[in-house]
Amino acid sequence: MSDVDWLEQTTENGVTKREFTLHRGARPVPGVLWSPERPVAGTPLVLFGHGASGDRHQMPIPWLARRLVADAGFNGLAIDGPVHGRRKVGDGARGAFAVEWRRDGCVDDMLADWAAALDAVQTLDDVGRGPIGYWGLSMGTIFGAPLVAAEPRIGVAVLGLMGVAGPTEAFRERIRSAAAAIRCPVLFLMQLEDELFTREQYLELFDRLASDDKRLHANPGLHPQVPTEELDACVAFLSRHLGGEKREPRRFAFNVSQ
Amino acid sequence: MSDVDWLEQTTENGVTKREFTLHRGARPVPGVLWSPERPVAGTPLVLFGHGASGDRHQMPIPWLARRLVADAGFNGLAIDGPVHGRRKVGDGARGAFAVEWRRDGCVDDMLADWAAALDAVQTLDDVGRGPIGYWGLSMGTIFGAPLVAAEPRIGVAVLGLMGVAGPTEAFRERIRSAAAAIRCPVLFLMQLEDELFTREQYLELFDRLASDDKRLHANPGLHPQVPTEELDACVAFLSRHLGGEKREPRRFAFNVSQ
Repeated sequence: MSDVDWLEQTTENGVTKREFTLHRGARPVPGVLWSPERPVAGTPLVLFGHGASGDRHQMPIPWLARRLVADAGFNGLAIDGPVHGRRKVGDGARGAFAVEWRRDGCVDDMLADWAAALDAVQTLDDVGRGPIGYWGLSMGTIFGAPLVAAEPRIGVAVLGLMGVAGPTEAFRERIRSAAAAIRCPVLFLMQLEDELFTREQYLELFDRLASDDKRLHANPGLHPQVPTEELDACVAFLSRHLGGEKREPRRFAFNVSQ
Repeated sequence: MSDVDWLEQTTENGVTKREFTLHRGARPVPGVLWSPERPVAGTPLVLFGHGASGDRHQMPIPWLARRLVADAGFNGLAIDGPVHGRRKVGDGARGAFAVEWRRDGCVDDMLADWAAALDAVQTLDDVGRGPIGYWGLSMGTIFGAPLVAAEPRIGVAVLGLMGVAGPTEAFRERIRSAAAAIRCPVLFLMQLEDELFTREQYLELFDRLASDDKRLHANPGLHPQVPTEELDACVAFLSRHLGGEKREPRRFAFNVSQ
């Protein structure tokens, strides 16, 4: 069982933000939980994984969390990735992550961090065990694809800014097998002129997702140039799938009935 | 000046549907106009181009038109393509179109049909000259891309189910140059296992669009397996761009501010 230190708590526009540190032996995990000022146990929870050189507060995570809390009544949880945020090593940017990424156990350690953080939050009386979604791009998919594959509590995911690529063949195999084990609905975001991943690497990852309910939104531009309209798409997608809307059989536009 | 025969008119759930034939010498053009039961001149108009083997009433055109009329107060206009609908030749299906598609002047004739239909509808007191959008997939893009490129009155377009492909090099060049002349906002729909067009052909067409405001939504499946959620995306996209919402400068998700 992990030990949680609850740090500062603030409430703004109906959204309560709680900072915390989860103590797990030599590997403390800094995290933040957003929830409605008047919480209802068992409402949906979205996990947010940040990108390399960011931290748990990297935009658009707080923007999305506040939208989902304020508009949909959900909870949001973000933790710092390894060598980032309050776990910063070296420059805490892509250089530090490039070293960590090559380490055996890098992904497994982060998955254990996520499981511990999720356990800790779900034991809170005002959060409880509701439906769970995941949102994470770039490094948030490097860890997020294996997490969504391994964590049966996650029922919907936004992934992207990433392809079948990585510094070692072991990691590339890990991403391939993770994708093949993901069966929940997925929204996948792609940048068409990404300087970090090729179109072929992106499409290989998307193709390998085992979900029969998946869609790809591709936009022109470099890796970080995701247009804000995709944030609206993320909010709508997560709200729809976590908000208890009855899952309809997949229908096609050319057969739609009046 | 074209001569219009107004045929049957019906009103259902607040939407008035008027069938017509536009007489232009040897080339009568069958069309249908959807408008609000209580029309307001100068509201937006969406042109709908159907797919091969369909006609002006091919789903999802009536579904989209009725949504845009009922929810947004827009008008909708669809005309039969060559060798289709009331202009049917032979089987009126892909076989007949394959022959027509090779004909010199095939695209120019359809563009003249569209211009005449648009002129006729805009002279109606209850329609008038509002903002104009275009929606057309597959054959609706084969004609639609050149139309959007050539028609300065069109300010937003949904295109897709089509790539840089076609039976003649002249046509492929026509599509390439049309794409390079399109500067309005575009939503482009792609099917990832399309049996008619390769991913490379799709992406070449999307890449060539000169619009700086364009996005691609790709879904798994064969050519006709566009999921219905893309219809909601089409309605939202057309409503947003034609409905007078102020065009904001393009912003990126990682820079969004709280």
